[in-house]
Amino acid sequence: MTNEPQESAGNEQASSVGLVETRYARLFDSPNELLLENGKRFGPVTVAYETYGELSPQKDNAIFICHALTGDAHVAGRHLPTDEKPGWWDEFIGPGKGLDTNRYFVICANVLSGCKGTTGPSSADPETGKPFALKFPFVTVGDIVAVHSQLVRHLGIEKLLSIVGGSLGGMQTLEWAARFPEQINSVICLAAAAKLSAQGIAFNAVGRRAILADPNFHEGSYYDQEKGPTFGLALARMVAHITYLSEISFENKFGRKLQHSERPAYELLKETEFEVESYLHYQGQRFVERFDANSYLCLTHAMDYFDLAAAYGSLEKALGRTNARILIASYTSDWLFPTAQSLKLVEALIAQRKHVTFLELASSKGHDAFLLEIEQLVEIVQPFLEQTYASVRDRAEHGDN
Amino acid sequence: MTNEPQESAGNEQASSVGLVETRYARLFDSPNELLLENGKRFGPVTVAYETYGELSPQKDNAIFICHALTGDAHVAGRHLPTDEKPGWWDEFIGPGKGLDTNRYFVICANVLSGCKGTTGPSSADPETGKPFALKFPFVTVGDIVAVHSQLVRHLGIEKLLSIVGGSLGGMQTLEWAARFPEQINSVICLAAAAKLSAQGIAFNAVGRRAILADPNFHEGSYYDQEKGPTFGLALARMVAHITYLSEISFENKFGRKLQHSERPAYELLKETEFEVESYLHYQGQRFVERFDANSYLCLTHAMDYFDLAAAYGSLEKALGRTNARILIASYTSDWLFPTAQSLKLVEALIAQRKHVTFLELASSKGHDAFLLEIEQLVEIVQPFLEQTYASVRDRAEHGDN
Repeated sequence: MTNEPQESAGNEQASSVGLVETRYARLFDSPNELLLENGKRFGPVTVAYETYGELSPQKDNAIFICHALTGDAHVAGRHLPTDEKPGWWDEFIGPGKGLDTNRYFVICANVLSGCKGTTGPSSADPETGKPFALKFPFVTVGDIVAVHSQLVRHLGIEKLLSIVGGSLGGMQTLEWAARFPEQINSVICLAAAAKLSAQGIAFNAVGRRAILADPNFHEGSYYDQEKGPTFGLALARMVAHITYLSEISFENKFGRKLQHSERPAYELLKETEFEVESYLHYQGQRFVERFDANSYLCLTHAMDYFDLAAAYGSLEKALGRTNARILIASYTSDWLFPTAQSLKLVEALIAQRKHVTFLELASSKGHDAFLLEIEQLVEIVQPFLEQTYASVRDRAEHGDN
Repeated sequence: MTNEPQESAGNEQASSVGLVETRYARLFDSPNELLLENGKRFGPVTVAYETYGELSPQKDNAIFICHALTGDAHVAGRHLPTDEKPGWWDEFIGPGKGLDTNRYFVICANVLSGCKGTTGPSSADPETGKPFALKFPFVTVGDIVAVHSQLVRHLGIEKLLSIVGGSLGGMQTLEWAARFPEQINSVICLAAAAKLSAQGIAFNAVGRRAILADPNFHEGSYYDQEKGPTFGLALARMVAHITYLSEISFENKFGRKLQHSERPAYELLKETEFEVESYLHYQGQRFVERFDANSYLCLTHAMDYFDLAAAYGSLEKALGRTNARILIASYTSDWLFPTAQSLKLVEALIAQRKHVTFLELASSKGHDAFLLEIEQLVEIVQPFLEQTYASVRDRAEHGDN
């Protein structure tokens, strides 16, 4: 769920989608407001999105990427030639890459209640002209998917070739498959689950507590204040970041190495004695520069509340609604969404006689592996998409779409 | 590392050590100040301790208990008949219990830099009459053990039958065996390791960050303020508490159960929607009532810095110094001190031809299992102590002590 995949050293230019721009769609205008899961209506919604590649004349090659907790629509390429880094999954998306933009039309949109262009707590409330702050409605994974689904229709696409996502993005793919099964031909669900574990909720609760108790939180109305709840948000990120790595990746990256010297300083106030401390502090600081605390509250709540079985009666009922081809992958060292949780999805899909492929991928990188282990991801995603595309075209030729 | 083992339902009275009191020893008076690992001298040190049972005429039946991060000297019995709860390991210690006070003389002392009677940051600095606060010296596990070792000599005991500890207490037993090998006949080291993992340091760093950034921290000089860093300390406890349980124990205890209703409230500011959130908040609140934030900083630092191999050149060199019988136990669901770390101790001991017994105990209760799974602990500790005691008496009879 970090957004800094290691850049590939190779010929980046040739395999890059190049310069891209974020576009904006205005959806759910009155009287067609979005009906939220909490029963209220909400609109309009501005959706920030990016696309790469060309939509085929048959409009059958579109792949939608669902981003994770703190991601955004800028998934590949650069906005400016001077951008230090490309989009957050650039290594995976581009000409000849895992999601090959020579073949596929790739879409990614920022989630509802986010802070990267799509309407969220930091957006202006049309009624007051001021940021919604905590007047922003409580949003669920279902609501997020409803917005994305509408964006796809807005782009003139009837049926997606695939939806792809990891972590909270993976939860979105599952919800999408259950909620709008007519809209998708395949699902690629990485490092995710049908619900968050109690331990996962506990970590999110700690992060929210840090934000809510920050004296600069001002009940969420900090936008016109000199300082927002940066301490709380940084702390929330620090604790979350630990859950994105694995014990072994911490050992490999840092072990017990000291930051500045060979010998310990023996200072009680020193916060960056060990390299791992310094790293976590840095992650926290960087995060507050790019993320809104209210969005963090909204999106961790959405993650906690997601419960596919509860929403549809059972996992079998939820996943029985789709006929999409489904690829599920977990990672050996992911302890936030362990393999056992992926297997529950697989069992439900098999019980429903669905087309499911499952892989547990070996990685020491923990939950973040889905962002970092690109090579092995490409190896499974490329043939999966090719087979899906072939079967879609085959069915279209035989008038059986 | 929580201090609330489940009380046994049985006949508590008959197997209780009954009413006990905390005593105080004043050690390291000038000019015999304690030489700390950071090279400075410190004294005097008041040590709070409790004892249960009777010291044998041969003074060969004493067992010292090393408490964990936030424990204290009050390990069994009650101070007052009206006390709601007995000492923190009461289920394990008493007449006929695991540490049988009919046979053994049990000692437990609060650690140096703690806040339960032994000199620590909240104690009065003799020079100023005010609390040391962060003028308190940086303390290591070695320093903690040096104080306990001196207490044992102060009590007129030349050699302990055993030292017992879990978690940070287990680290103390290892350090003691390496530092004062002449003082101990056996070691019972539970849920511990020769060093904390980078992931463990990371969790401690988050907790310290929460305390240090609390606006009521006042650089540690909060004792005369209206309010101390209670928010930060509670948050530190919340995140630490997650590491003391296991994913499965969270699932078993709470799962995704809601606290107050069948249906979610969909409220952004609600902090106790799920039972697990409510539980963590309660743990945090309870903790600040009983613990000092500066002590928490000192003791988590001591834990982070502990590195037995680095201190003695290698694990083999450290553990090669002792001829004590050693019992090491880990717990299957303990992810803070996983079995792999215990096995490193065992390998070093075997390489040094030492007497070592190792067990991985099955438990779903995570790191806290050493406080909670008393029955299986008794089963291994009782025979281990009996054999140790028999061999000690045997050697004494043959003039070979």
